[in-house]
Amino acid sequence: MRIVEMHVTPIALGDPPLLNSAGLHAPYCLRTVVELVTDTGLTGLAEVPGSAAINVKLEAARAVAVGCDPLNWHALRAALRSYFGTDQRALVQVESALDVACLDLAGKQFNVPVATLLGGIMRDRVPYSAYLFYKYEGAGGELAFGTDARATGWDAARQRAALDPAGIVAQAQAMVKEFGFQSIKLKGGCFEPAQEVAAIKALREAFGPDVPLRLDPNALWTVETSIAFGRELEGVLEYLEDPCRTQEGMAAVRRALKTPLATNMCTTSFDDLPGSTRHGSEDIILTDHHFWGGLHASMELAAHCRIFSRGVSMHSNNHAGISLAAMTHLGAAMPNLSYALDTHYPWQSEEIIVGGRFKFEDGCVVLPKGPGLGVDLDRAALARAHAAWLRCGLRERNDEVEMQKKVPGWKFAATRW
Amino acid sequence: MRIVEMHVTPIALGDPPLLNSAGLHAPYCLRTVVELVTDTGLTGLAEVPGSAAINVKLEAARAVAVGCDPLNWHALRAALRSYFGTDQRALVQVESALDVACLDLAGKQFNVPVATLLGGIMRDRVPYSAYLFYKYEGAGGELAFGTDARATGWDAARQRAALDPAGIVAQAQAMVKEFGFQSIKLKGGCFEPAQEVAAIKALREAFGPDVPLRLDPNALWTVETSIAFGRELEGVLEYLEDPCRTQEGMAAVRRALKTPLATNMCTTSFDDLPGSTRHGSEDIILTDHHFWGGLHASMELAAHCRIFSRGVSMHSNNHAGISLAAMTHLGAAMPNLSYALDTHYPWQSEEIIVGGRFKFEDGCVVLPKGPGLGVDLDRAALARAHAAWLRCGLRERNDEVEMQKKVPGWKFAATRW
Repeated sequence: MRIVEMHVTPIALGDPPLLNSAGLHAPYCLRTVVELVTDTGLTGLAEVPGSAAINVKLEAARAVAVGCDPLNWHALRAALRSYFGTDQRALVQVESALDVACLDLAGKQFNVPVATLLGGIMRDRVPYSAYLFYKYEGAGGELAFGTDARATGWDAARQRAALDPAGIVAQAQAMVKEFGFQSIKLKGGCFEPAQEVAAIKALREAFGPDVPLRLDPNALWTVETSIAFGRELEGVLEYLEDPCRTQEGMAAVRRALKTPLATNMCTTSFDDLPGSTRHGSEDIILTDHHFWGGLHASMELAAHCRIFSRGVSMHSNNHAGISLAAMTHLGAAMPNLSYALDTHYPWQSEEIIVGGRFKFEDGCVVLPKGPGLGVDLDRAALARAHAAWLRCGLRERNDEVEMQKKVPGWKFAATRW
Repeated sequence: MRIVEMHVTPIALGDPPLLNSAGLHAPYCLRTVVELVTDTGLTGLAEVPGSAAINVKLEAARAVAVGCDPLNWHALRAALRSYFGTDQRALVQVESALDVACLDLAGKQFNVPVATLLGGIMRDRVPYSAYLFYKYEGAGGELAFGTDARATGWDAARQRAALDPAGIVAQAQAMVKEFGFQSIKLKGGCFEPAQEVAAIKALREAFGPDVPLRLDPNALWTVETSIAFGRELEGVLEYLEDPCRTQEGMAAVRRALKTPLATNMCTTSFDDLPGSTRHGSEDIILTDHHFWGGLHASMELAAHCRIFSRGVSMHSNNHAGISLAAMTHLGAAMPNLSYALDTHYPWQSEEIIVGGRFKFEDGCVVLPKGPGLGVDLDRAALARAHAAWLRCGLRERNDEVEMQKKVPGWKFAATRW
């Protein structure tokens, strides 16, 4: 089997004005859909974060991929590294796209799910966590910062502002009601720590001690702030995610707290793992197959976490159904999955796959039954999403610029409190 | 696809009287052949070290394996661990046998080589190293300590005694002539260090600086001896394997020498990897899929070695063609294979697979072309090898007892020089 075509399609999906440490989400999130077509007529799919820089690399990767056997990932990856040089951090999204699409092809060729090819299915229902955001009012997408007056249920709730603990609790209640999530994460790093700690305490009050809670200040806190507010939340949090920067900083916080620390910021690549081990910077590593180089690579990270007694779970940026399928296969295959996975998926309302949006059952996604990833492209929906990409004019994610539209002069600070 | 039958067949293959730190090889080496049969009529093969204890566990594992889907390794392994308890070291051979046999089944089901299912083929010719032994005269097997007067070529050479540097050089020349090996390992730990160091220097003299040499004293040396004789061999050895015991001891030697250290004795399981990392006990880890829990597990070890900038290669005990095929698929798939693999294969003369013994080309084994492992059982040969097992009466490897037959009162010492 040989790859004969590689299609790279940038898309834009509506995204509400969610607040985070870097600023504000634009009205659209950018993704890029990659299709590999074989000489046997199979098509393999993948989806990665979209940016002009990533798209250029994906276009360049076509020259390497076409002609390769998609069943021989090690050789294709070696060819990519030979072509692009040794800076693996620059190549992770390309490797991720090709690894996922090749696994989709292999699953279709062998008539098995991708999870089977990652070593086997440990669970066919993969648990996700509610992912709460402080936000301004608005739906994103064509409405930009406006709202859709016809919306009901979660679709109405997700358009409402949430700028204080009461708003966060209301958002959580609507999201949990809709999706059945059994655990809850709050993206912090937006307001001073006392407000975000109050929001976590309000969530605990509203949901009780049986719903695990997580707070992610996105590394905006100092070590001292992390320890002080971490102590306020001892016994309340399932884990505290990236309170501060650097492996050394995280290790200092970890020594001071009983609450486990998770990261997708201080340990983000295989090159960081020796430092993680040396410093003891976290208890849980949150993989993201888009940033670790694919599903095979994420399984290697899971093995590392098992060897060094770390927990493992998953980070998420905005994404569509191809990535949700890939994350679900990975979550189904990981023997040592310790925690419900993050997903931005509830914040989007569009989809590019046949059958429309994935459903959640009690916070879980049921592993797709079909071969490979088990999803197919809805060509009309893909064309609409590509047209939105052409129209919206965004070519990279820049949350600082978006924030400045609401708060003139706002500047990102790597450490704020 | 479901496993419906599991066959466990102990076999004995003739083995010459090879010397090593534990004593002397018996006239037979023991292996156990495992066959998994599916409801679709496929048969998957594996081969593990044979002993009464391992055979009992394999027989017990049948109750777990039958009914399982061989394509779902993670679930089958979890079921094994649930059944046998958490002592993974006691379970590695069982996990290895079932992992290899399931991969053979998957390859046959999907019509691809096992190396493809390990992530892809990096090389279709896998390099092995010559493996020299001090030995007494004799062919082993039915001849016990005698020799076959009709033997010619390597078959005659492998029956000759080799008890000094000249004998080792002659053995090396015959083995390299027959198999084309490009690198040479000497199993040491048999004579006082000066004699073994002299043998290495004689090999260097005979083969020149372009043939990498390795010495394996099997951890019989003290740290001081390791450093003193390691210094004598600086610039001569490709690597020094397990000169002494414990990760701390190895780390002390490693700090004192420029020559890389390899191990299959101080770091032998995933539980040992945190200590290996902390102490810095070796430069190269020699995996052995029989002792690390299978081919998937060995790929995880290879990833660990890449992450922590360790080399990786392969250890070998006596084995037949099923294990040689498995080792060759693993060697073909490992992206970061750093060194030619060990194999005892030249020391055996029998085989249990269709087509008889594997051929070496320039020291390499060509990856079998067929699906799965690419080997099939020769039922008549298997029956002969099983009959030899019944007849020989050996039920576990005990090199001390064999040595005492030649040297009355000989005792194993964990550290000798």
